Amino acid sequence: MSGKTKGYAATAKGKKLELIEFDLGPLGDDQIEIAVTHCGICHSDMSMAENEFGWTQYPIVPGHEVVGTIAEVGPHVKTLKVGQRVGLGWFSGCDMMCASCLAGDHNLCRNVEQTIVHRHGGFAQRVRCQAMWAFPIPEGVEPAKAGPLFCAGATVFNPLVQFDVKPTDRVGVIGIGGLGHLALQFMNKWGCEVFAFTSSDSKQAEVKKLGAHQAVNSKDAAQLQKLAGSLDFIISTVNVGLKWSDYLKTLAPKGGLHFVGAALEPLSVLPVELLGSQLSISGTPNASPAVIDKMLQFCARHGVEALTESFPMSRVNEAFDHLRSGKARYRIVLANDIR
Amino acid sequence: MSGKTKGYAATAKGKKLELIEFDLGPLGDDQIEIAVTHCGICHSDMSMAENEFGWTQYPIVPGHEVVGTIAEVGPHVKTLKVGQRVGLGWFSGCDMMCASCLAGDHNLCRNVEQTIVHRHGGFAQRVRCQAMWAFPIPEGVEPAKAGPLFCAGATVFNPLVQFDVKPTDRVGVIGIGGLGHLALQFMNKWGCEVFAFTSSDSKQAEVKKLGAHQAVNSKDAAQLQKLAGSLDFIISTVNVGLKWSDYLKTLAPKGGLHFVGAALEPLSVLPVELLGSQLSISGTPNASPAVIDKMLQFCARHGVEALTESFPMSRVNEAFDHLRSGKARYRIVLANDIR
Repeated sequence: MSGKTKGYAATAKGKKLELIEFDLGPLGDDQIEIAVTHCGICHSDMSMAENEFGWTQYPIVPGHEVVGTIAEVGPHVKTLKVGQRVGLGWFSGCDMMCASCLAGDHNLCRNVEQTIVHRHGGFAQRVRCQAMWAFPIPEGVEPAKAGPLFCAGATVFNPLVQFDVKPTDRVGVIGIGGLGHLALQFMNKWGCEVFAFTSSDSKQAEVKKLGAHQAVNSKDAAQLQKLAGSLDFIISTVNVGLKWSDYLKTLAPKGGLHFVGAALEPLSVLPVELLGSQLSISGTPNASPAVIDKMLQFCARHGVEALTESFPMSRVNEAFDHLRSGKARYRIVLANDIR
Repeated sequence: MSGKTKGYAATAKGKKLELIEFDLGPLGDDQIEIAVTHCGICHSDMSMAENEFGWTQYPIVPGHEVVGTIAEVGPHVKTLKVGQRVGLGWFSGCDMMCASCLAGDHNLCRNVEQTIVHRHGGFAQRVRCQAMWAFPIPEGVEPAKAGPLFCAGATVFNPLVQFDVKPTDRVGVIGIGGLGHLALQFMNKWGCEVFAFTSSDSKQAEVKKLGAHQAVNSKDAAQLQKLAGSLDFIISTVNVGLKWSDYLKTLAPKGGLHFVGAALEPLSVLPVELLGSQLSISGTPNASPAVIDKMLQFCARHGVEALTESFPMSRVNEAFDHLRSGKARYRIVLANDIR
């Protein structure tokens, strides 16, 4: 099979995405090739297209919330077959032999490959990954809405597993967007008492439908103060700096403030603020394959799914504008119409 | 028995300690009174005498690394007897009925009483505490050197328990003073590979005798860089701001940077620095009674003890000057000579 394919690429900072042709080269022994049917849009697709992290090599085809069917499998692949419906997220490969991979933490591999870093992602006819990073979509999960689970979903599900969040915990989510609206659903089904922190007036009512037991207006200092000393674990999905000390004060003894959003402003927290109540601040990237599989089973069992808006892939630039406007509710999925 | 006693007090900021008489009032039902034989000096005794934390009410008798014999027990005390040799540390009381106390985390009690905050400590003939905060000194622990275990020791032992440090872990200590020299011993006996970070040239050799497998000159950026991605847990005992990002880079995946020193400068770490390797930043205060008991058994079993210099209590001002000079190796203990 030829490695030739097409996708929507950013060719320089500030330019609109355009359809390009490119060659994927020979398929790796442990890789599979996915014929993309759908791809979600994550904020970091725009960040990569705009080189906001400073890593982008142009041209770049974004897209790392992929759903499709397997078109080809490499000769060493034992676990997947051509024709299976699978998903692919932020990570697309790992070395399988470092200490982290050997411990089951393939997402922490030092040689991890990222779907849209120095390679092309899922706004394309075809995309490739190591077989272990493609996940069969279980019955009960709607393929057209599944894409966002692989980045947004796995990113917020992972800390619940890694930090041993308990069904008796009181938990919070800061920022109710693509990640946050899935975090609320997961935490609710996890059994927790759930608090949604949002500065958006229009979301105050919506968050309760998503599983929050209480909406907290994060612009209202009095509402934060009322929660003093009460929350066990807070996940921040935002990528801006907030007054983190105010959130630390809402934590119960042994509580944790956890980051999954790539906030690029310093924490400005004093170490002494952590001491008295044994508080922690932590971060995680997207999940390991084992955790992503658990998440998919959890979604199927509990009916957790992304609330999505659909655009044809040919209108990706319009979709980017919609996401930038802050009006997406809550995740945009592109339906592939590349011929 | 009368509540009248004497102790060395700071009577105003910047003044030398002087012997005062004061009245302890009636003994509480669940309290004991200790006739002090020895008391260690912690840096925070000087901070309290100088009102550096802003909480000090003058006059204040410092001292919270107390060893002595029980002179009296309140009517509700079932577990201790007059004449027993006990130690007392930073905490002297708790409410015993909040969620933290009920969970065994009495050190995180919201109504915790601190030995030298708004009450008088151990630079005195007599000091009092709730019975649960006085610890019989086991055989094999030398009473004249035991005082520092109750603050310095418990403070660095606690995170090993709370954060589940494993004997197979690679661990580090930043700052080798009263706390750090005990941390090195604990970590060595815990089974870990131990790294001592110190900016003091004179301590580079000493730290190996204390249990470090490797001394790291923290002024030498190249030595820190060589440790990139390798440590599981670092305890910082210092109370100044360092370039914490440099220490985060020495952490292995899932590693933690832990504070027990009351550093009052902002962390200046970006949340995004925590994400890729699932790192944590945390803090703990002194330990719970259950953990302090475990620590004392551990010290007796492994021969862990503070390296001490002795001063008569009447020379406490000279001892403060010696500590301020940075020359104490590693903890000063006052022998009580108040008549």
